[in-house]
Amino acid sequence: MTPEPIRIPDAFGLFNDHWSPKAIAAMNDYLVKLVRVEGEFVWHAHDDTDELFLVIEGNLVIDIEGNDSVSLSAGDLFVVPAGVRHRPRAKHEAKILLLEPRSVVNSGDAENSDMTSPVEWLEMS
Amino acid sequence: MTPEPIRIPDAFGLFNDHWSPKAIAAMNDYLVKLVRVEGEFVWHAHDDTDELFLVIEGNLVIDIEGNDSVSLSAGDLFVVPAGVRHRPRAKHEAKILLLEPRSVVNSGDAENSDMTSPVEWLEMS
Repeated sequence: MTPEPIRIPDAFGLFNDHWSPKAIAAMNDYLVKLVRVEGEFVWHAHDDTDELFLVIEGNLVIDIEGNDSVSLSAGDLFVVPAGVRHRPRAKHEAKILLLEPRSVVNSGDAENSDMTSPVEWLEMS
Repeated sequence: MTPEPIRIPDAFGLFNDHWSPKAIAAMNDYLVKLVRVEGEFVWHAHDDTDELFLVIEGNLVIDIEGNDSVSLSAGDLFVVPAGVRHRPRAKHEAKILLLEPRSVVNSGDAENSDMTSPVEWLEMS
């Protein structure tokens, strides 16, 4: 093992696309991912897993079906419980850290959405 | 569900003790914890799980048995693999986010250390 920390601000400098999470670290059966978001994602739910959002920069709104929306700023953390339909959206670009099981599809039960993307690891040289 | 985000900087304002992680959120069988650290922790390993460190403020060094030490600053993330003996330390106070399975004992196999503390949830009113 070469112990190399992951510098999150630098890692965000390595990609520019939106709604396409990049895995940066594994912890047991989970992946830590970074994603840039802007505009609206699709409404979806993950039936089998909670989903963790940590805002690194900018502002994120998570609409929650049947409930109030959640407004998050840098330094705010929120866990969407399994099975809860939600829609992340950001008026301006925001940088988000996600934690999800390795098996998760980003668009949950909206699998055929054009927002669906496979797990992609960020290349850090 | 009342959707309430957790504001990490505010949450750190609710406690002052060192080396005593406070759970702030659950995600599946995992807990997100905040901890203030200063000085040296005990050498220990978690045989059954990786451990994730994300530095929120300050600087953290993680000594790794048989390897180089890892120096982390704010925004840096590091995962200590399961079974790897390590010792976190901080010359000055640092604020750290941890991710661990619910079952984890903070001092790992050094269970009888006076650094051992039970899982404690942070009261956020």
